[in-house]
Amino acid sequence: MSADLADSVFLLACRRQPVPHTPVWFMRQAGRSLPEYRAVREGTTMLESCRRPDLVTEITLQPVRRYGVDAAILFSDIVLPLQAVGVDLEIVPGVGPVVASPIRRPADVSVVRALEPDDLPEVGEAVGRLVAELGGTPLIGFAGAPFTLASYLVEGGPSRNHEHTKALMYGDPATWDALMSRLADLSLSSLRQQVLAGASAVQLFDSWVGALPAADYAQWVLPYSRRILSGLADLDVPRIHFGVNTGELLTLMGDAGADVVGVDYRLSLAEAAGRIGPGRAVQGNLDPAALFAPWPALRERVLAVVESGRSAEGHVFNLGHGVLPTTDPDALARVVDLVHEESAHSVGPAATTDVTR
Amino acid sequence: MSADLADSVFLLACRRQPVPHTPVWFMRQAGRSLPEYRAVREGTTMLESCRRPDLVTEITLQPVRRYGVDAAILFSDIVLPLQAVGVDLEIVPGVGPVVASPIRRPADVSVVRALEPDDLPEVGEAVGRLVAELGGTPLIGFAGAPFTLASYLVEGGPSRNHEHTKALMYGDPATWDALMSRLADLSLSSLRQQVLAGASAVQLFDSWVGALPAADYAQWVLPYSRRILSGLADLDVPRIHFGVNTGELLTLMGDAGADVVGVDYRLSLAEAAGRIGPGRAVQGNLDPAALFAPWPALRERVLAVVESGRSAEGHVFNLGHGVLPTTDPDALARVVDLVHEESAHSVGPAATTDVTR
Repeated sequence: MSADLADSVFLLACRRQPVPHTPVWFMRQAGRSLPEYRAVREGTTMLESCRRPDLVTEITLQPVRRYGVDAAILFSDIVLPLQAVGVDLEIVPGVGPVVASPIRRPADVSVVRALEPDDLPEVGEAVGRLVAELGGTPLIGFAGAPFTLASYLVEGGPSRNHEHTKALMYGDPATWDALMSRLADLSLSSLRQQVLAGASAVQLFDSWVGALPAADYAQWVLPYSRRILSGLADLDVPRIHFGVNTGELLTLMGDAGADVVGVDYRLSLAEAAGRIGPGRAVQGNLDPAALFAPWPALRERVLAVVESGRSAEGHVFNLGHGVLPTTDPDALARVVDLVHEESAHSVGPAATTDVTR
Repeated sequence: MSADLADSVFLLACRRQPVPHTPVWFMRQAGRSLPEYRAVREGTTMLESCRRPDLVTEITLQPVRRYGVDAAILFSDIVLPLQAVGVDLEIVPGVGPVVASPIRRPADVSVVRALEPDDLPEVGEAVGRLVAELGGTPLIGFAGAPFTLASYLVEGGPSRNHEHTKALMYGDPATWDALMSRLADLSLSSLRQQVLAGASAVQLFDSWVGALPAADYAQWVLPYSRRILSGLADLDVPRIHFGVNTGELLTLMGDAGADVVGVDYRLSLAEAAGRIGPGRAVQGNLDPAALFAPWPALRERVLAVVESGRSAEGHVFNLGHGVLPTTDPDALARVVDLVHEESAHSVGPAATTDVTR
């Protein structure tokens, strides 16, 4: 880690160290809400873009330039490693990932083979370029968690109810185990590749896992997510774990081996930190819909998140879900500034200065 | 209430009285999963169907005939009263309700005028026919709760993130209050009409309210839902209140004036009953996706719901959300039989018989 990165406010907060202000980044900060993103993506499909180091570098840097966020997140997609190992899929605009042959029988599972170093050389190259460009701003690598990847594969695309996924999980535990084991290995390999190329932190996205009750999560998902998170321990980078609708799962997710647990917007960070337990930082949790409210209302909600985050041992400000495509970038810019300003004099050494002056 | 209805297992459970077995019905039991439904709906739009007493009667009766469920629910749609008072909307197949002119400014609100008795005479006629046909099987009337109706009106259609709804709620409380007040009056009028025509119970659906944190629900939604539920008190019919993703809201929803609180599939009925508090029955909560699993796995999950329901003062078996369109009707039939059989000897007087014989 470079000397610059050692001072990263984002990394300090992930490690529950004192920080000069609360760090901020946004899930999907690089994406359709930015006109400069739409401009460079024109004429290139999503998955093609993810394999072009020049585009990945540019797109990843765009929100860092525009907002001054405290971390960059690699521009990529959670299904990229699946495509790289030979799963026939594409990302259809307005729909999401669409898989040509859904995986529902034991024989289907073998399509998810192990990720080899040569499968995604473009990602390593992009990470290398980015680390050089970013200097003191850390780069977050990411991967999809096994349940969310399994849902795309089993349903054949985005699903509101995950009925085929759950039918497989409940009805054919051996096939489920085989699929989840392969997906865990795939995500672990992908994350290790990103860290070894220079990423300073990772986020494991289990976007859809909130569709499960806690008992099912504990039995059929947690062991595989834990395998990934514990498989990164030797790399000594902060591991963030996030899902939506996870209020009932936070205690278990806090026990999955992450250093930071992402929280959606349905409960306060103080309440969430209590469920997650000691020894972890929290990330979140402004409702992305709040960015559509007038500034006084938005401001009040941002301040409430900052305040609630003080209950946690460490807090990385983020949204409770990804930036919506029609979000006004200026609203995000104001949020970054507000969080930086409002948290600057109230934590760590600055607080002492405040009191004595 | 007829003598037959006084013995209704469904109504007894709603009133937390002893029952010979756990009653069962399914949200969306009348709908696309049934071939006989698809046959009679052919060539008629959804909202046209809701205004034809012959079709409403036939469709409402179909699942009662097929499954022997313990309650019928009026075939209708939560946006029907909105259309009846003049809101320009249609239900687009595969999409949902689409509103021609979204409501976002103060002047837009007046389109939601009060519901007059002459606005939906077809509904009263259908209820009358149904009550005559159903005999001892109670009919549940229903309406949409103000937040869910507001979301359709403000977004202009179904929404995953409710960003314009929340922006209005957070940013323009006066307009929000005006809109929610009118919607509460509309739903209350619709429910009173259904009960006065003969419905024996009502369900207030707040499908999307789980998109709100508890503090927002308490401030901006609960007062309007409570106005509806308390406005039905004089009619002395069980009032069911249901939403999806409401784990964090159940304590508040339990305090909104319902006799029965519906629970989605994300937490056990025992846990839910604890949050809802004493003096209420619970309804739920088999995951509709579980109906896609092989019978041994489905059976196990049904039994777990029955068992967990024993922790509550009263339990109406249902799904944790509506029947999915591709559900196999035979799976639902087996679930009804299983719940009836498995609960028959273990509650009320039958349990005593079991022990002594």
